[in-house]
Amino acid sequence: MRTQVAIIGGGPSGLLLSQLLNREGIETVLLERRSRDYVLSRIRAGVLESGSVALLHRAGVDKRLRSEGLPHDGCFLSTQAGMFHVSFRDMVNGQVTVYGQTEVTKDLYAAQDAIGAVHVHEAEDVTPHDVTGEKPYVTYRKDGKTRRIDCDWIAGCDGYHGVSRQTIPESARQEFERVYPFGWLGILSETAPAADELIYANHPRGFALASMRNARLSRYYIQVPVDEDPRSWSDDAFWDELRLRLPDEVAVSMETGPSVEKSIAPLRSFVCEPMAHGRLFLLGDAAHIVPPTGAKGLNLAFGDVHYLFEALRRWYRDGDAEGVERYSETALMRVWAAMRFSWWMTSMLHRFPDQSEFDQRMQESELRQLITIPSARATMAQNYVGLPY
Amino acid sequence: MRTQVAIIGGGPSGLLLSQLLNREGIETVLLERRSRDYVLSRIRAGVLESGSVALLHRAGVDKRLRSEGLPHDGCFLSTQAGMFHVSFRDMVNGQVTVYGQTEVTKDLYAAQDAIGAVHVHEAEDVTPHDVTGEKPYVTYRKDGKTRRIDCDWIAGCDGYHGVSRQTIPESARQEFERVYPFGWLGILSETAPAADELIYANHPRGFALASMRNARLSRYYIQVPVDEDPRSWSDDAFWDELRLRLPDEVAVSMETGPSVEKSIAPLRSFVCEPMAHGRLFLLGDAAHIVPPTGAKGLNLAFGDVHYLFEALRRWYRDGDAEGVERYSETALMRVWAAMRFSWWMTSMLHRFPDQSEFDQRMQESELRQLITIPSARATMAQNYVGLPY
Repeated sequence: MRTQVAIIGGGPSGLLLSQLLNREGIETVLLERRSRDYVLSRIRAGVLESGSVALLHRAGVDKRLRSEGLPHDGCFLSTQAGMFHVSFRDMVNGQVTVYGQTEVTKDLYAAQDAIGAVHVHEAEDVTPHDVTGEKPYVTYRKDGKTRRIDCDWIAGCDGYHGVSRQTIPESARQEFERVYPFGWLGILSETAPAADELIYANHPRGFALASMRNARLSRYYIQVPVDEDPRSWSDDAFWDELRLRLPDEVAVSMETGPSVEKSIAPLRSFVCEPMAHGRLFLLGDAAHIVPPTGAKGLNLAFGDVHYLFEALRRWYRDGDAEGVERYSETALMRVWAAMRFSWWMTSMLHRFPDQSEFDQRMQESELRQLITIPSARATMAQNYVGLPY
Repeated sequence: MRTQVAIIGGGPSGLLLSQLLNREGIETVLLERRSRDYVLSRIRAGVLESGSVALLHRAGVDKRLRSEGLPHDGCFLSTQAGMFHVSFRDMVNGQVTVYGQTEVTKDLYAAQDAIGAVHVHEAEDVTPHDVTGEKPYVTYRKDGKTRRIDCDWIAGCDGYHGVSRQTIPESARQEFERVYPFGWLGILSETAPAADELIYANHPRGFALASMRNARLSRYYIQVPVDEDPRSWSDDAFWDELRLRLPDEVAVSMETGPSVEKSIAPLRSFVCEPMAHGRLFLLGDAAHIVPPTGAKGLNLAFGDVHYLFEALRRWYRDGDAEGVERYSETALMRVWAAMRFSWWMTSMLHRFPDQSEFDQRMQESELRQLITIPSARATMAQNYVGLPY
């Protein structure tokens, strides 16, 4: 089989890239190791930057998002000194849209089906070959047979554990990492959200986040030791702890109920440089991981999709190689800015095991600066709604 | 002897407080352990916030400062990606004034002499007594005799090593500290400054600062290990290292010459809470130390002087105790904001021995945010020119 762009990974970035390229008349084959049902069962992020929404619009996949997504004009920060609001609208005339990643993925699959995009699910042992030559190809096994796809370019959208990044020789890449000494215990519950916008809480007992997917689906997180067993937390224990960390006025009236999902996620910052090797590109989690504080993961992946889509479009339409040559450099600029923001949000909001009293006062002073200096709120708002592509 | 306010410490804060109170008709006695010549020989900070300039104006001590001080409308930050300018003028319509602390002290002594303020120099074993009662007093030894000053209030302006903070029982105070794992090797030289504004340089070899006192007196610093011996650095070695860390365009034309002073200063953040105990108040270094990055030390001390002066004025004029009762709380609000700023500047600009590659990228991203996001520059400018009292 031959195609123009082989896409490894059927999560939202791979699907969105496939959708954008196909609509531009550029052929793709998408290979995914898992089944579609498995991909759709993953519960992830839920906050879209307006740039991400615009990209989904461009891909023709924003209909349901526009009607069901919840536009948020700001968020709340809860501190020992009280809760305050950061208005994205007032500060930078921006907003974000709450719409679950699972819903984005569903919409993308539906759109891909409608245009007859080529997907291969349960493709085993996917392997890129000759990526530094002019004629790269990808092999995989399916139904016991090994198959080969010849292509011009390979897009690695296969996540942190995928084969794409590993294809770049260790001598040709540098990896940057910070592992945070805690995790997030999260639950999903069919209850009304605690507030109409997200609440990020810095509390002596640890960080908490009140988030949501829609009007009847809430997502809550509390900071816990990273080796905690989620099964050791009953729903009641979770709600009790969450209530202690949220502002009283919120905790007292918050609707609770049985959890429909409960899990622990570690927090990590990770970047691989470069994000390209010959004709192979890395996108999303294959190249970088952010801690979830600030909701940058999916948006950063979509930024990569934007840059690679534009680069490939220029290549096929104009024969212009500049975009593909500069993809890594361009994408990394935005990646590091989001890394900084996620690291800053994480550092400001969590309790660290080795945190001194001085460090804690620095956290409080950082939060206080947000309250007292409008330009500090503007900088946070600018990062939160997303830096321009 | 009896007075209204006993001031311990004859550095700039003690002198300024004495000057402001005397002009308001409030009696003071100022006790200083050292000689006046010794006090005047100390070389310290050189950048005044406009709030500090306004306070000196109010004290009638700004004549020479206005004619000889150098107004700076911004500063430069030098990074691996080049040098950029942060305009205080454009960002927050503010400025700072370069004028050496030694000059401020000289002017204050002259003004104090002119109004006949009472100073006792070389006062040994200064000790506050009964500070939690209604009738505090201070004892000291001079010329072999022990003397006593009865007073209403005691202002502790006697620096980090002074007796004032130690007078607060350990059980009644909390101390916060961060010691940075490096020092600043500084020289003073009778040369023209390298640039017309300060240059803060983040460089792989370590931080450097090009500062000045006046048109023919430059002050330069380089980050060194904290246990470095300044005698191991010849002037030539210093200039060579400095040139490597400053931007090429500056280094190439920089005037060099023999140093007239050379010393190493450790970098530390320190705060004592509360800043008052009964009728004893702590001001300046007696209560807090900032690392010199961002030039907050003297300005923070003058902020304390402002708050205490206003509080005592209300007390004597209106019999209103609210100011003195709230002095600690009010002053600490501003102290922690400056602590955050100095810590942030220090963290962003130095190389840390335990810094990971990820941490280094976070530094670069922080600097890049200043370049790319105007509100981030505005927040820096706001802090640099000084938060309002």
